[in-house]
Amino acid sequence: MAKKTSASPEMEKMRHSCAHVLAQAVLQMFPEAKLGFGPAIENGFYYDFELPRTLIPEDLPLIEKKMKHIVKQNQKFKKYEKPIKESITFLDKINQDYKVEAANDLAKEGHDTIKFFENVDQKGQGTFVDMCEGPHLESTGKLGAYKLTHTAGAYWKGDEKRPMLQRIYGVCFATQKELDEHLKKLEEAKKRDHRKLGTELELFTFDEEVGAGLPLWLPKGAYIRHKIMEFAFNTYLANGYDPVCTPHIANVALWSHSGHLDFYGDSMYGSLTIDEEEYRLKPMNCPFHVKMYNNTTRSYRELPFRWTEMGTVYRYERSGTLHGLTRVRGFTQDDAHIICRPDQLKEELRKALDLTLFILKTFGFEDIEMNVSVRDPENKEKFIGDDKRWEQAEDTLKEVLEESGFKDYVYDIGGAVFYGPKIDVKVADSIGRMWQLSTIQFDFNLPERFGMTYVGEDGNDHVPYMIHRALLGSLERFMGVLIEHYGGAFPAWLAPTPIVFIPVAQTHEKYAEEIMEKFKKEGIRAEMYPATDTLGKRIRAAEMKKIPYMAVIGDKEVEGKSLAIRDYKTKKQNSYPAAKFLKQLEKEISQQQ
Amino acid sequence: MAKKTSASPEMEKMRHSCAHVLAQAVLQMFPEAKLGFGPAIENGFYYDFELPRTLIPEDLPLIEKKMKHIVKQNQKFKKYEKPIKESITFLDKINQDYKVEAANDLAKEGHDTIKFFENVDQKGQGTFVDMCEGPHLESTGKLGAYKLTHTAGAYWKGDEKRPMLQRIYGVCFATQKELDEHLKKLEEAKKRDHRKLGTELELFTFDEEVGAGLPLWLPKGAYIRHKIMEFAFNTYLANGYDPVCTPHIANVALWSHSGHLDFYGDSMYGSLTIDEEEYRLKPMNCPFHVKMYNNTTRSYRELPFRWTEMGTVYRYERSGTLHGLTRVRGFTQDDAHIICRPDQLKEELRKALDLTLFILKTFGFEDIEMNVSVRDPENKEKFIGDDKRWEQAEDTLKEVLEESGFKDYVYDIGGAVFYGPKIDVKVADSIGRMWQLSTIQFDFNLPERFGMTYVGEDGNDHVPYMIHRALLGSLERFMGVLIEHYGGAFPAWLAPTPIVFIPVAQTHEKYAEEIMEKFKKEGIRAEMYPATDTLGKRIRAAEMKKIPYMAVIGDKEVEGKSLAIRDYKTKKQNSYPAAKFLKQLEKEISQQQ
Repeated sequence: MAKKTSASPEMEKMRHSCAHVLAQAVLQMFPEAKLGFGPAIENGFYYDFELPRTLIPEDLPLIEKKMKHIVKQNQKFKKYEKPIKESITFLDKINQDYKVEAANDLAKEGHDTIKFFENVDQKGQGTFVDMCEGPHLESTGKLGAYKLTHTAGAYWKGDEKRPMLQRIYGVCFATQKELDEHLKKLEEAKKRDHRKLGTELELFTFDEEVGAGLPLWLPKGAYIRHKIMEFAFNTYLANGYDPVCTPHIANVALWSHSGHLDFYGDSMYGSLTIDEEEYRLKPMNCPFHVKMYNNTTRSYRELPFRWTEMGTVYRYERSGTLHGLTRVRGFTQDDAHIICRPDQLKEELRKALDLTLFILKTFGFEDIEMNVSVRDPENKEKFIGDDKRWEQAEDTLKEVLEESGFKDYVYDIGGAVFYGPKIDVKVADSIGRMWQLSTIQFDFNLPERFGMTYVGEDGNDHVPYMIHRALLGSLERFMGVLIEHYGGAFPAWLAPTPIVFIPVAQTHEKYAEEIMEKFKKEGIRAEMYPATDTLGKRIRAAEMKKIPYMAVIGDKEVEGKSLAIRDYKTKKQNSYPAAKFLKQLEKEISQQQ
Repeated sequence: MAKKTSASPEMEKMRHSCAHVLAQAVLQMFPEAKLGFGPAIENGFYYDFELPRTLIPEDLPLIEKKMKHIVKQNQKFKKYEKPIKESITFLDKINQDYKVEAANDLAKEGHDTIKFFENVDQKGQGTFVDMCEGPHLESTGKLGAYKLTHTAGAYWKGDEKRPMLQRIYGVCFATQKELDEHLKKLEEAKKRDHRKLGTELELFTFDEEVGAGLPLWLPKGAYIRHKIMEFAFNTYLANGYDPVCTPHIANVALWSHSGHLDFYGDSMYGSLTIDEEEYRLKPMNCPFHVKMYNNTTRSYRELPFRWTEMGTVYRYERSGTLHGLTRVRGFTQDDAHIICRPDQLKEELRKALDLTLFILKTFGFEDIEMNVSVRDPENKEKFIGDDKRWEQAEDTLKEVLEESGFKDYVYDIGGAVFYGPKIDVKVADSIGRMWQLSTIQFDFNLPERFGMTYVGEDGNDHVPYMIHRALLGSLERFMGVLIEHYGGAFPAWLAPTPIVFIPVAQTHEKYAEEIMEKFKKEGIRAEMYPATDTLGKRIRAAEMKKIPYMAVIGDKEVEGKSLAIRDYKTKKQNSYPAAKFLKQLEKEISQQQ
């Protein structure tokens, strides 16, 4: 049972084969093991098992050793198909209960046969057979470089009410060099894990009594989040956006009118009652913005509207899928809706795209991938809104991207949401991982449902275009990505403490204090580590906190009115006149670099 | 039945007597009228009636005329007391059902007698008797100046399930001059009503499908709200506060632990369910801040913490009590908690008070009244926390106020909340009405419930002081007050559009556009009213929108690179070189004046 990944056909085969050999090795070690699913995944594979005991880290090298042995034997992968009834009898005979269930599921879906892969050794003898769609390599000898990385608990079929199996993860590459590089990257990613850094740098925390997936932003994290929000919001205002602000709850009447109850209900939290009426937490800001548009008659002269809101929305995520800041239950979107006339569409999309690039580049995201998702022309009935509008929207999206130099965008036919086409923007972080951040999305649903119109130059009512865009996406997720992107070492303009003053001895504290006050007066959030501890310990503490600049102050500095500055990023130390460094830091902060 | 107001004893008597005479007059007009309650209120009185028909505005002068007649007769108010049983029989006999119910209520509360006031005319004959606590004037001739102002529906006992009565409101003063001044002020207040201005200036709106008491901030209102929030928040950060940020919901476990479910449950909305656990919208931010404090061990060296959050909270208000922005169901507090050592208390309170004054003065609130609420020393058991802490807190509050020159603060013994003493700050708006805005409040409850401690210099655990402070209070309410305070004419630094350019004719548009772009480049949100309409109409439109500055541009201005500036506030027109006025406006905005 394997899902498809987007790898090259050869790598796809290798990952499936690795999973297969992993299962074979585990069965050698635990003959009573029951196999769950074992798909190929990004850069590797995993397999779920029911085992007689919990795995310990020391088990993985032993299993790897068994895999190596199988590889060495260069067993052939033999593919065959059996009628489904016979397959079930066979799987039952070898006591693979989960496979039996999976086969029964396939039978219910109407499949007549089941596919298997069997290993055949040099003597032509079968050594292991697994129910599997493949594809596989020719033989185990072709397996390339692989490594088992870690284990985790995983419910059978992802269902919390079914048994918990043990999942073994592995990575695999064509060459040892690629594998080594990947493992190094994994090691680097582990160091940058935002959950680990979030605790170490005191950025955020979670609390059981508050509830899962609901982050509490500690002062340093809240400061960074605030600076990002302030930067984004003020950038939007300076670019012709107007602010709006809406509540976090609304009567079910609104969610029923907007269609959210029907189409998005599973992601919405349950009702709360006020005066015998039901209210729901908002999963999106859109219907409120539409309500404000409809507050009065609108004229073609007033358009475009660009309405932005730092809107905190609440969406249900299963507890098992929650992950630090990148998957939470409540998050703030840097949301905006552009409401415009058809003749303004191209200009508005161009502006939205330019703004996206400016925002992303400010955070050092230079490697950007554009993804355009359009309607499936063969399945038009799955998408609402009239043909001409879809065509204008899709054509304009493509034109704008091409004219902005994004000729190699990914084009996903049929990938549009039912209510409109969209651009999703993916960025590569500093260690090359791709993250989907910004989105620019048409909405043909709400204007229709709420009867949004404007009076045209001809005196008649016309339906405006409505474009939803979020450039950071979720602030929480963006912060999670950013912590990993910067490895926790935020640039001075975002750092909660851009500079720390470290007097060598108590005698230097007075001068340090004086200089610090000058920095503070210019709005720089400086701190001092007084000489209550050894110099070495304080320097290490500042390093641990990843503070951009350390100003060490000894006799020489007091005498020369200077600062010995250690730069966290370059690890270099330089001496500056205090006033000069203050100016330099002020400039760095104000230029958001 | 009359509640006490805080007026002078003489005015108190006059208000009660006016209510009494009003009831007498109404009974003359509608002999079948049944009387409800008729208390004295701020600046006047009202009385509730069950009447055979709905009152129309024209009825009020007729009732006033009957009141005048009674006044002219100078009837004496005779006070007497009757045993309760006899009273009920009497009230029943005269068909005053509501009074009978009220008398029965008093009987249940253990009263033995009922007080009455009877009018006696010059011939010694009783003309009207009302069950009433008084106090009353000597006779109707002493009534002073009064006026019936308006009517409104009012449920008997404020209970939506009981009959709706008709309430007649009146105002009264010792002299006609005072009454006239008050009526003028009422007229002015009506013009400034934030609900009226909110619609006219497109600041905010409400929507039935969204729900009552949940404001939608339209672009112009949201801009002002954003500027106020930005100003306050950045002021706090510059004054040693750190930001924090917390979710809008939490598991009931938190609200149970904090005591909110027990002590504040009536103001909290009902539960919503996530994964079979109950969650509640937050009515306060405090427990989250406490959780963050308890996230790790705290040392005396780290204190004080000053944690601020623009926290949106949701509190239940009965639908009948909702009122524009000043009473809503969801609002944002400029909340902060100061957590400090006992030796830091005075300095922290002084700083908090200074900051309060700075914030209030920025909005032109100069007339400030301080209210200190302390424990009732006779009823200590009603208040939690230890004696010494209460004493230090109360003494420090008073000391700080006195040292800051507030020697005439209002002192309310017994007015403290059960969890700590407080300062409430009231301000007079531009037409002299008092509003309670800021609050600085001790909390002895949460530190105890959550076991908040810090490690002292002695190595032992100590309980910190926790002070809650909100200087604007609720942003929504503050905006409501501010709209009325400014009469909708916001100063340039808050105005959504500080300046509008009005070219006299189309030929002046190009120059107007050029100059406007220069203003916009400096971050000034300028607008242009192009010459599609008459000059007069456009000037009136800008007046209606209360835009601080109008720049009218004709031949003379184009020639001289100047601007003819009309100042909304002074109504004066002056000519400025364009560049000079740009500088002046920039300065005005940056200095928040």
